[in-house]
Amino acid sequence: MGPATLYAPLPDPFQLRRGGSLAGGRIAFETWGELNPQRSNVLLILTGLSPGAHAASSPADPEDGWWEGMLGSGQGIDTDRWFVVCVNSLGSCKGSTGAADLDPQTETPYRLRFPELTLEDVAAGAAVVLDHLGIDTPAVLIGPSMGGMSCLAFAALYPQRCRRLMLISTAAQAAPFAIAIRSLQREVVRADRGWANGHYSSGADLSTGMRLARKIGMTTYRSPEEWRDRFGRERIPDAPVEPFGIEFQIESYLQAHAERFITAFDPNCYLYLSRAMDWFDLADHGGGDTQQAINALGVESALVIGVGTDFLFPIWQQEQLARALQDSGAAVRWCPLASPMGHDSFLVDFDRFCPPIADYLAQIET
Amino acid sequence: MGPATLYAPLPDPFQLRRGGSLAGGRIAFETWGELNPQRSNVLLILTGLSPGAHAASSPADPEDGWWEGMLGSGQGIDTDRWFVVCVNSLGSCKGSTGAADLDPQTETPYRLRFPELTLEDVAAGAAVVLDHLGIDTPAVLIGPSMGGMSCLAFAALYPQRCRRLMLISTAAQAAPFAIAIRSLQREVVRADRGWANGHYSSGADLSTGMRLARKIGMTTYRSPEEWRDRFGRERIPDAPVEPFGIEFQIESYLQAHAERFITAFDPNCYLYLSRAMDWFDLADHGGGDTQQAINALGVESALVIGVGTDFLFPIWQQEQLARALQDSGAAVRWCPLASPMGHDSFLVDFDRFCPPIADYLAQIET
Repeated sequence: MGPATLYAPLPDPFQLRRGGSLAGGRIAFETWGELNPQRSNVLLILTGLSPGAHAASSPADPEDGWWEGMLGSGQGIDTDRWFVVCVNSLGSCKGSTGAADLDPQTETPYRLRFPELTLEDVAAGAAVVLDHLGIDTPAVLIGPSMGGMSCLAFAALYPQRCRRLMLISTAAQAAPFAIAIRSLQREVVRADRGWANGHYSSGADLSTGMRLARKIGMTTYRSPEEWRDRFGRERIPDAPVEPFGIEFQIESYLQAHAERFITAFDPNCYLYLSRAMDWFDLADHGGGDTQQAINALGVESALVIGVGTDFLFPIWQQEQLARALQDSGAAVRWCPLASPMGHDSFLVDFDRFCPPIADYLAQIET
Repeated sequence: MGPATLYAPLPDPFQLRRGGSLAGGRIAFETWGELNPQRSNVLLILTGLSPGAHAASSPADPEDGWWEGMLGSGQGIDTDRWFVVCVNSLGSCKGSTGAADLDPQTETPYRLRFPELTLEDVAAGAAVVLDHLGIDTPAVLIGPSMGGMSCLAFAALYPQRCRRLMLISTAAQAAPFAIAIRSLQREVVRADRGWANGHYSSGADLSTGMRLARKIGMTTYRSPEEWRDRFGRERIPDAPVEPFGIEFQIESYLQAHAERFITAFDPNCYLYLSRAMDWFDLADHGGGDTQQAINALGVESALVIGVGTDFLFPIWQQEQLARALQDSGAAVRWCPLASPMGHDSFLVDFDRFCPPIADYLAQIET
């Protein structure tokens, strides 16, 4: 958590959808820009699984954020015009209450005594932040990846508080391939002896499980085509230091990224959020039917962006969302992009992502 | 190894390409059909990583083989006409000498004292089988997946013994995505404490590592589209028996397949063959240039089959092979198939695979 992190206290107790409650919880968030007097210039960003609320640098925290190329003065999401709120998901370990935090009732970390978490709970946490700021209805809910699912959960729970959606590389529900990948990520974490059935001590070493989980994830974050052109079959200069150790550049790239992640995320928080993504199904809000659920949102307009090389959230899922929103009566801009960088394109390919986002926001009157 | 398994002794010592040698080694194989007097009706099949030599049932072994729907009387590969030889790869644990076997010099299993293995060594092992059978030049070398790479290695080592190639869902060299997947599979095996740096005892439990390796592999063997249509978001009837345990049908499917694999393959043999696939590069036989290497094969004709939903050996790799063979002067049939089952289509989608294979074989005069 950086110097720009703000906190909204959760109601005490805060009930979770599948049972259980939290005492003394809080949601971390950050803001950029100025709220206008009519409170009509609010953009709410809900994030992917791993990022915190620090989406971009600001005077209060000059460190680069996870969406630095998108958010700022004169950028795709222009903080000169918009008051931007980015919320750290409930259950995460980046400021909002999660399984790694102390349970005030026992003065020990929750670990697996943390209640089962859903993206509807994440959305409810975001609503608490808006209440805290005195904001009723944001101009647009913006969600990339898991954040798009959380935005859909928010819209389903509070349709009157959602006028417009910007859905990026996301889905109404996970497909079995994505479930398989995340299930495997959870399994390698659980297979790490350090995990100790979820009740590890604070200094426990879970680096093996977390490293493997991150590497499995990374095989789905970019695209085989990008890797082919970027790494080919290049070797690293030195021979492997251990039997069957790293030889190719692609292996070294995975290793370097995974090492950074190990210390950045609590294993249980990761498990809770990962499972919440698999559980989420917008159709649950429409009697088992996604179209019914989307009709009930009453969304005025939407921008839906997808990337053809994304195979974690494949583009047919965004196309499906765009069509369903259109059929619900929303004015939809459907924007398939030819980014080569797969699922993570929205984090890196700003040349392609900024223009449609800026255009969509420009036509909104505040 | 079944009752139909035959063995060809390796020359003693048998030198491996990267150094080291084997004493008293052997290659397992099976045959179907009758060798004609001119010895001109031989088909040599080299396999993917995990199958053994038992490609199909026969009077000597009525158990179904791994290519049961392809190989037999009147089938795509018609054993009434052809004398078919299927070779178990050197380094495997299904009859041919591998790391799990006893080193006659120490009377203990080789484990990591087994020499480094390449697909060129696998090809050299196949050549020993042909010598043993008194066969100089097969009519066609047939290789699906890793077997296709081994066929290319064979052709590069013994161009005079290779007239025709049937290359199925394979590549001239692995792309970084496939390397990443296999590197991860090797890493989960090595991360299993039971692996003990490769020197496990015979009863050691490596089920966790092998289960995870197989599951990672399985995410790339079929296709996300097939899984979507087959499993959707169906749940299993019972709640998870452990925290973050299995809930979705897709998870249960992976679990069931992985459990079968655990007992079927030796972990070190898996590591050796997996690394051999990553190392293999046909371009090494052409001064760094794949086209040069293919030109040197002098192949008369080839059938190249690829599947659009395969993302482990993506179809551009087969297209590249077909074009390079064409440019080398071979008569090439390029056959892209619309199978929904991804890389493993050749093992299951016989309706699509049998006709082009039968057609190609039918025009060969013996």
